[in-house]
Amino acid sequence: MSPCRFCEIINEPKKANEEVVFENEHFIVLLDKYRQTSIGGICLIVPKFELDEYEASEIINLISFIGKKMQEAYSARGIRVWTAINKEAGQSIFHCHIHLVPCSRFMDRLTAMIPGIYDILRRISKLNKSALNSERLFEYAEKIRIQINTN
Amino acid sequence: MSPCRFCEIINEPKKANEEVVFENEHFIVLLDKYRQTSIGGICLIVPKFELDEYEASEIINLISFIGKKMQEAYSARGIRVWTAINKEAGQSIFHCHIHLVPCSRFMDRLTAMIPGIYDILRRISKLNKSALNSERLFEYAEKIRIQINTN
Repeated sequence: MSPCRFCEIINEPKKANEEVVFENEHFIVLLDKYRQTSIGGICLIVPKFELDEYEASEIINLISFIGKKMQEAYSARGIRVWTAINKEAGQSIFHCHIHLVPCSRFMDRLTAMIPGIYDILRRISKLNKSALNSERLFEYAEKIRIQINTN
Repeated sequence: MSPCRFCEIINEPKKANEEVVFENEHFIVLLDKYRQTSIGGICLIVPKFELDEYEASEIINLISFIGKKMQEAYSARGIRVWTAINKEAGQSIFHCHIHLVPCSRFMDRLTAMIPGIYDILRRISKLNKSALNSERLFEYAEKIRIQINTN
């Protein structure tokens, strides 16, 4: 079994410079490497390890903080926030993560809500298997990092 | 403009006995009156008023608590959790609320993810305009209340 992609990045965040948007003691915020909406990248908020109740509750402020920075970075009023618990709900990477999806039009909400359909279209159209190229990823991440660092 | 449905229930929770699953100082948990999945009702976690950062962070433990009770009540392994910020992301009632959707099969995830499509089908099929009847709502709520009170 290959190691969890999130754990790999948590252990060596510098190797994923084009994806990592923010990091603190308990969480890392990444861009989804495989999906985007019409206005920007999708952020994933990932706890670094099993958190206690008090530590876990910090995620609310982090969702609010990153959501506001995404709104500024992508001129996105709408943000869809979601997570899936267990495969019956659509979880595919079994390391807790929360999706923050910048939304402007209805298709963005579909991308936000049915990642599987987005993936099928991507495969049919034979887009690069590693999806978003690293320049695009870096550009999306940098827009958010600039908002985080300048305010 | 009619008053917000959530505020009406928060002000008089006893009038909505068939919908209210749980209540504490800061939050009320309701069943979605208009939608269900193949295995049970959809819970909405609603802050009663504007919360400060510390109060708001309690929602994480409440999501975890209600999620576990839904899993027990409906034998649902999968739970999809989502919220929309602003209408561009699909928000329709402009009083913050988090959806907890019990999932067993793919259609449940669609119901969870595209409430609009569920609503269109409901309207086309001329189901009762007030959607779930109060017996069904009461039954769904009672299953969760029993789990909350017996553990």
